[in-house]
Amino acid sequence: MATTLIAGGTVVSSTGRGAADVLVDGEQIAAVLQPGSSLLGSDLRASVDRVVDATGKYVFPGGIDAHTHMEMPFGGTNASDTFETGTRAAAWGGTTTIVDFVVQYPDQNVLDQYRLWHEKAAGNCAIDYGFHQILSDVQDASLTAMDELIDEGVTSFKLFMAYKGVFLSDDGQILRAFQKGASNGAMMMMHAENGGIIDVLVQQALARGETTPFFHGTTRPWQAEEEATHRAIMIAHLTGVPLYVVHVSAKQAVAQIAAARDFGLNVFGETCPQYLYLSLEEQLGARSDEWGDFEGAKWVCSTPLRARADGHQDHMWQALRTNDIQMVSTDHCPFCMKGQKDMGLGDFSKIPNGIGSVEHRMDLLYQGVVDGRLTLERFVEITSTTPARMFGMYGRKGVIQPGADADLVVYDPNGHTTIGVDATHHMNMDYSAWEGFEIDGHVDTVLSRGKVIVDETGYVGSKGDGRYIKRGLSQYLI
Amino acid sequence: MATTLIAGGTVVSSTGRGAADVLVDGEQIAAVLQPGSSLLGSDLRASVDRVVDATGKYVFPGGIDAHTHMEMPFGGTNASDTFETGTRAAAWGGTTTIVDFVVQYPDQNVLDQYRLWHEKAAGNCAIDYGFHQILSDVQDASLTAMDELIDEGVTSFKLFMAYKGVFLSDDGQILRAFQKGASNGAMMMMHAENGGIIDVLVQQALARGETTPFFHGTTRPWQAEEEATHRAIMIAHLTGVPLYVVHVSAKQAVAQIAAARDFGLNVFGETCPQYLYLSLEEQLGARSDEWGDFEGAKWVCSTPLRARADGHQDHMWQALRTNDIQMVSTDHCPFCMKGQKDMGLGDFSKIPNGIGSVEHRMDLLYQGVVDGRLTLERFVEITSTTPARMFGMYGRKGVIQPGADADLVVYDPNGHTTIGVDATHHMNMDYSAWEGFEIDGHVDTVLSRGKVIVDETGYVGSKGDGRYIKRGLSQYLI
Amino acid sequence: MATTLIAGGTVVSSTGRGAADVLVDGEQIAAVLQPGSSLLGSDLRASVDRVVDATGKYVFPGGIDAHTHMEMPFGGTNASDTFETGTRAAAWGGTTTIVDFVVQYPDQNVLDQYRLWHEKAAGNCAIDYGFHQILSDVQDASLTAMDELIDEGVTSFKLFMAYKGVFLSDDGQILRAFQKGASNGAMMMMHAENGGIIDVLVQQALARGETTPFFHGTTRPWQAEEEATHRAIMIAHLTGVPLYVVHVSAKQAVAQIAAARDFGLNVFGETCPQYLYLSLEEQLGARSDEWGDFEGAKWVCSTPLRARADGHQDHMWQALRTNDIQMVSTDHCPFCMKGQKDMGLGDFSKIPNGIGSVEHRMDLLYQGVVDGRLTLERFVEITSTTPARMFGMYGRKGVIQPGADADLVVYDPNGHTTIGVDATHHMNMDYSAWEGFEIDGHVDTVLSRGKVIVDETGYVGSKGDGRYIKRGLSQYLI
Amino acid sequence: MATTLIAGGTVVSSTGRGAADVLVDGEQIAAVLQPGSSLLGSDLRASVDRVVDATGKYVFPGGIDAHTHMEMPFGGTNASDTFETGTRAAAWGGTTTIVDFVVQYPDQNVLDQYRLWHEKAAGNCAIDYGFHQILSDVQDASLTAMDELIDEGVTSFKLFMAYKGVFLSDDGQILRAFQKGASNGAMMMMHAENGGIIDVLVQQALARGETTPFFHGTTRPWQAEEEATHRAIMIAHLTGVPLYVVHVSAKQAVAQIAAARDFGLNVFGETCPQYLYLSLEEQLGARSDEWGDFEGAKWVCSTPLRARADGHQDHMWQALRTNDIQMVSTDHCPFCMKGQKDMGLGDFSKIPNGIGSVEHRMDLLYQGVVDGRLTLERFVEITSTTPARMFGMYGRKGVIQPGADADLVVYDPNGHTTIGVDATHHMNMDYSAWEGFEIDGHVDTVLSRGKVIVDETGYVGSKGDGRYIKRGLSQYLI
Repeated sequence: MATTLIAGGTVVSSTGRGAADVLVDGEQIAAVLQPGSSLLGSDLRASVDRVVDATGKYVFPGGIDAHTHMEMPFGGTNASDTFETGTRAAAWGGTTTIVDFVVQYPDQNVLDQYRLWHEKAAGNCAIDYGFHQILSDVQDASLTAMDELIDEGVTSFKLFMAYKGVFLSDDGQILRAFQKGASNGAMMMMHAENGGIIDVLVQQALARGETTPFFHGTTRPWQAEEEATHRAIMIAHLTGVPLYVVHVSAKQAVAQIAAARDFGLNVFGETCPQYLYLSLEEQLGARSDEWGDFEGAKWVCSTPLRARADGHQDHMWQALRTNDIQMVSTDHCPFCMKGQKDMGLGDFSKIPNGIGSVEHRMDLLYQGVVDGRLTLERFVEITSTTPARMFGMYGRKGVIQPGADADLVVYDPNGHTTIGVDATHHMNMDYSAWEGFEIDGHVDTVLSRGKVIVDETGYVGSKGDGRYIKRGLSQYLI
Repeated sequence: MATTLIAGGTVVSSTGRGAADVLVDGEQIAAVLQPGSSLLGSDLRASVDRVVDATGKYVFPGGIDAHTHMEMPFGGTNASDTFETGTRAAAWGGTTTIVDFVVQYPDQNVLDQYRLWHEKAAGNCAIDYGFHQILSDVQDASLTAMDELIDEGVTSFKLFMAYKGVFLSDDGQILRAFQKGASNGAMMMMHAENGGIIDVLVQQALARGETTPFFHGTTRPWQAEEEATHRAIMIAHLTGVPLYVVHVSAKQAVAQIAAARDFGLNVFGETCPQYLYLSLEEQLGARSDEWGDFEGAKWVCSTPLRARADGHQDHMWQALRTNDIQMVSTDHCPFCMKGQKDMGLGDFSKIPNGIGSVEHRMDLLYQGVVDGRLTLERFVEITSTTPARMFGMYGRKGVIQPGADADLVVYDPNGHTTIGVDATHHMNMDYSAWEGFEIDGHVDTVLSRGKVIVDETGYVGSKGDGRYIKRGLSQYLI
Repeated sequence: MATTLIAGGTVVSSTGRGAADVLVDGEQIAAVLQPGSSLLGSDLRASVDRVVDATGKYVFPGGIDAHTHMEMPFGGTNASDTFETGTRAAAWGGTTTIVDFVVQYPDQNVLDQYRLWHEKAAGNCAIDYGFHQILSDVQDASLTAMDELIDEGVTSFKLFMAYKGVFLSDDGQILRAFQKGASNGAMMMMHAENGGIIDVLVQQALARGETTPFFHGTTRPWQAEEEATHRAIMIAHLTGVPLYVVHVSAKQAVAQIAAARDFGLNVFGETCPQYLYLSLEEQLGARSDEWGDFEGAKWVCSTPLRARADGHQDHMWQALRTNDIQMVSTDHCPFCMKGQKDMGLGDFSKIPNGIGSVEHRMDLLYQGVVDGRLTLERFVEITSTTPARMFGMYGRKGVIQPGADADLVVYDPNGHTTIGVDATHHMNMDYSAWEGFEIDGHVDTVLSRGKVIVDETGYVGSKGDGRYIKRGLSQYLI
Repeated sequence: MATTLIAGGTVVSSTGRGAADVLVDGEQIAAVLQPGSSLLGSDLRASVDRVVDATGKYVFPGGIDAHTHMEMPFGGTNASDTFETGTRAAAWGGTTTIVDFVVQYPDQNVLDQYRLWHEKAAGNCAIDYGFHQILSDVQDASLTAMDELIDEGVTSFKLFMAYKGVFLSDDGQILRAFQKGASNGAMMMMHAENGGIIDVLVQQALARGETTPFFHGTTRPWQAEEEATHRAIMIAHLTGVPLYVVHVSAKQAVAQIAAARDFGLNVFGETCPQYLYLSLEEQLGARSDEWGDFEGAKWVCSTPLRARADGHQDHMWQALRTNDIQMVSTDHCPFCMKGQKDMGLGDFSKIPNGIGSVEHRMDLLYQGVVDGRLTLERFVEITSTTPARMFGMYGRKGVIQPGADADLVVYDPNGHTTIGVDATHHMNMDYSAWEGFEIDGHVDTVLSRGKVIVDETGYVGSKGDGRYIKRGLSQYLI
């Protein structure tokens, strides 16, 4: 078993930072020590197999992206990143764990799907991975499967209040699944948009000839998100189950989540980088020489980008500071413009929904630190510690402490990263939603369970380095 | 420099827990290691000077009580604990740092008082200590002194909205001090009760013959606390200074602090064990053979104990869970019944205000964990990590990590502690406000800066072990 | 045309009261005059055909009950009051106008139903009547019919969020109907309970053997009402339509309606006498010699009676005072215990939902005045003026002013009314939900469009006195 | 006793409107009748002494301006309108009642002042007048005087939280006065601004050389108003007294008043025309050839005009619609630019505070109806009915009903009014704060207690027409 010393860096946790060396022994962290410590006489630098010099740099616990959709079948195509390409891109960006979604579509058997996803991922991943389970057909067999899956380390289950006939659960089904979760300790996750309203608005917009990507945004108004968020919270309240609302984009939905705390409820919210930086006006309404008024298709995702004029983005940063929103995941669900997004030319409702960001989440959030939006400690909490606690991986992931997996990122605050297409990103996409973003920092070195998988030469890991993470119940409940 | 290994315990932080050994080298923590780790061949257990066996026990960062008043002159007498007796009692209870208040009364020079408090404490303390500064005479010289004190490590300043002629600052003075704090980075602390209202109510009650301790509670209604809390928040909002509201007891004041987050403000709240466990009806209204209807004097403190019928206590526990209240300090300000509290026989307004709890805070909060009120991690956050961050000591205090002061508590969840008078407490008081409380846990071993000061034989430290902590600016701001 | 002088009384409006005589000429009020006025020489008392002496009594505008269901087909039976018996009972109680609901069930033609209801009512009513239209099948033809009905004086349309397969509209249908209402000026009314949740809870309760009426209440929790209320408000917000939430019973639903005002929305709430006086514990859980634990069936209505322990009833009175709830209607929907309610013996879900109160609303609300719950002016506003304005009848109804229909109640504050079965009520029911209620006041005389229909001898009107009221758009919007 | 018939108009009340004739007999309204009614044979038009033709026009109850300061001594000068000039100007504008403030300054005897104000007003007023009492020296004698004044018809008492040494009461004094009000039924009025904060900000601004009128606004930030409003509400809550907050200008203060309703409190708010139409940026920052950057002095009043960029004005209109603000008074307190306002050249703090609007309130509010901001009924409620009820005059004032004083305004919706200086206003001021405002309506005829005082020729009344109104307790409490 090889030993590595991350030496001379500033180790950052969710509560503070300090100069410390991190000794890695095999796959785990063996010790965190005073820097340069001779430790009872032994010269660690000399004794270890490898020394990573982190002088002048930060050492973060590896990023955890708790919301990805690798090669997900959706809208007649598949998300363009496989587990192989997607996790490799994640590694480039300092993310060392993803939690991906097993999909049950109507009439499918939950456990069959779970096994199918294992097949897709096994042996292909660059980093560790866990699974949430999507339930699109809540009936007795699906509920029973929840118990089995918890034993398998799948302790979180996602329902949808939109996409009728594909994903949508009605309120009675939501109630039954929440009751089950309340009994077995699961975390329930919710795509909170009122699909019934949205479907009518989409149909009406298309009938009016409003067919460009911009109208994807206008037909999913904040009221549809706020309403569904409130509804999910009330059903959670009724059953006592913990609730995690995914990809929150509307400030009014944030307010509902914040209000749930007034009841002392275990209700949590996740947002995504796009809801912090991008907007309805600028992105969904974009025009280009190449794509004309279809340019906005690049940013068609659900929940949609919101109007900057209404202040959603600034409010979301504030909510991250005040812990009204606890986490930032990517909802990574990439589709290429050619051959995928362009299925929606002339009809925005046929554009596959999704943005690819798994590679850039850590950089984009770190830029929030540079810009004075977040403290460095809050950055670590949002990107790693809370995701680990929220989804039952803490101790092994999310923290730099003895016994934890040696998932580590050496980050250079004096480095620089330019985001864009071609050579500069590694996701399987023919465009970048983040083209031209400049980051005042750089991912220098990434270790995954003790192995250096990214160094100054780039990605140096191997397909299959990543293993399945059997997760426990949430460690974030009050 | 002696080395000590705390071996075999479960190390708890504010975010999680894990099996780990803690290696202490001299006054600091040298390393946190996988338990039983031979660490590159060296046998640590054999190498260190002393091994503390923590098997089956928790290892907590030492408790930090950020609100004490040792030997404070008040109401014509002095708080009955000296720095010597008070800090020794704190050590017994697993508290390894206090932050005490330097008092400026009207017409006193702030820096003179600061030096005087150093004289009182120096060479007498069992544990480390820092100072906040009370400002009761906000004028130009006092404001100038704030800058100097920050250089001295006094980075927090307390004002009062009650006690006219003794402590009270008017709103203009509060504004000026807050403006100063906004410019120099200080944390402003506030005793938030509307003294103008209270003084009239007290006068009227006494005139009606309502003279027993019970009326101390009824003449300080929640409206007086809620109002002052709101007023302090608005002035903080106007100036941009961070605000820390001390000894919050009314649920409506909690609501004001929670609402301040809606503005994204740096507004924080502290409560005390008495507001979690004790009540107006049961304590202030108590009667005994010895003291008759004056028994309640034991629990006369300000803000006062609140009515249990109104649910303040349950709401306060909830606020601790939801982080609407961030910390629990003691407001330790003990007075004996004989010769001190009894000055108020026949006139509750003459009872010295204060309760002594510095010894019991850790145990009382731990019981909240046992009772399912708090998680173990939240216990550590409330009692140590957040106080350290809030008041600029984190890194040195509040966390178990290399380079931190080796302030450690080995706590036995299978032990038991009975609180009470005589042999069972060590504060300089002739009664206990906590008589008869039973705790399902026990402080086994306490280290202060690497030195064992409490072991199975009891207190084994020496007067003067404690040193002054020069604090930095708050590390808890968003 | 006969003339009548209501002389010597205290005329009460929604804003004040004063001594005045009311001169009725034919069907309308001709003048309101200073009492005893000789008016330019003419002796009115001597000149008119009839003098009603109101000395020492109040003169109210006739009560308007804006929510009744005469002979409604529901649950395999019909509400037990016909238009004849129900309106006659209303007259006894000082109510001179009802607005009843035309029912469209799925697959029925809206206009056919509207005509059918006219046939039921025409020539049978003791007092004037208008119609709301229930839409249970929102599709293109139903939406088109809305425009026609507005021309017919049916300007308000009710949807249901519960009773799947019978009444329920899904959110897309609600959206479409609300959009239509926003375009043609209609008031949209909502039965706001989440039927999806309730259906599951009912099924589960029955499966557990919870079959008595008490479980009607527990399977319709406040969360189901609060949630649906919020959802309806959001859809109203999205479309800009005015919204009127019927039979609000949960204090949390009241809070949602109150919050809607923060947006400046036209959102209103109605409650019913049962939600002010009766409770889950006392009524739904009642037991009797005759009916055993089925006694509670008498009070099975939806929304259900709420727990008094949670303070819903007191909060509802407060909401009436603060105008967070604007009106009190009865939701009069009577069923006899024998042959109707008893269809649900052994299965509470088969009990026809409804309570009969049309006769008692004015008395029950007046008792609120006596008990200090409401001012006398607010009583008039709640029972007459606001209903008239809300539903487009003001000027003709709801006010005592020249040109208004002479619908008048002379009410004796020194009289007394005992409510109960047999001789003492006139609704077609074999029990009274209000058995034993005592009222410190009495309806002495009732005029409907100038004709005395109730006097000291009792009901003296004729079947068919009442006429259809063609209503205009709401006059209550801000 | 002369008789007058206001014939053919549309009579408007707070709840609706209708065609009706109003018969005036002497000073009172004798009857309200169907238009053109022959009333039992008598031809009214022929019988009365005078017919006022209101065809095509509105008939409003006379305006009540519940907040004026005629010839008030303040800041070393006197408000420039005497009771004679001010009430005459009011009459021109359709206001038939004012409630003016008797001032007690420190060390003055309340009852002496009350008598002094009677001397000022008696025989000089064009319209009826009542008095509120300002208490600036709350001590035992002042409290005792409150009881006497209530017998005199002064049932409302105003305190100040600003203007130290002149008007300010401290919180203990406020408490004592509120307790007194709670016992004797008084309405307590509050100037809610935190003077302690403002005084420091003013001093600091002047020290920085910020001396122009604009800084009057910046040194009275919304936090000072919101805070004081909240504080007053809490003291009202503690004592149970009804509270009326005068001249509310900040939207955040509105929110505090709205929240008070959540407690079910009798807390009310008044705003003024300037807070609906004018702003910090446009008026306080105005520059002119004549006055340079001192132009803004014309609009120096307290509370100050607020920033339009923050949306205070729009929110205030909304609050009027939702009844979160109940009334609009003028706070009429005029000072001329030459010889009065110009005392503050070079030091904004020396500018006498006040704006003159008593003549224009009805027109300015009516324009809100034209602009779709208010309904016509709400206009009547705000300008007449609620003021009458709020301050105990309803029945006699505020309503068109038999027995009421014949205070009537015939208003022409097809007329036009241009507001401005010189010939077009009648207040004793050398400028107009409303210069250039155009109103789509016109006050045609004004009756005060049955006497026409304004007709097509202008003011036709006499000095001394107005009489003192002995008011009762508030009729607006819930």
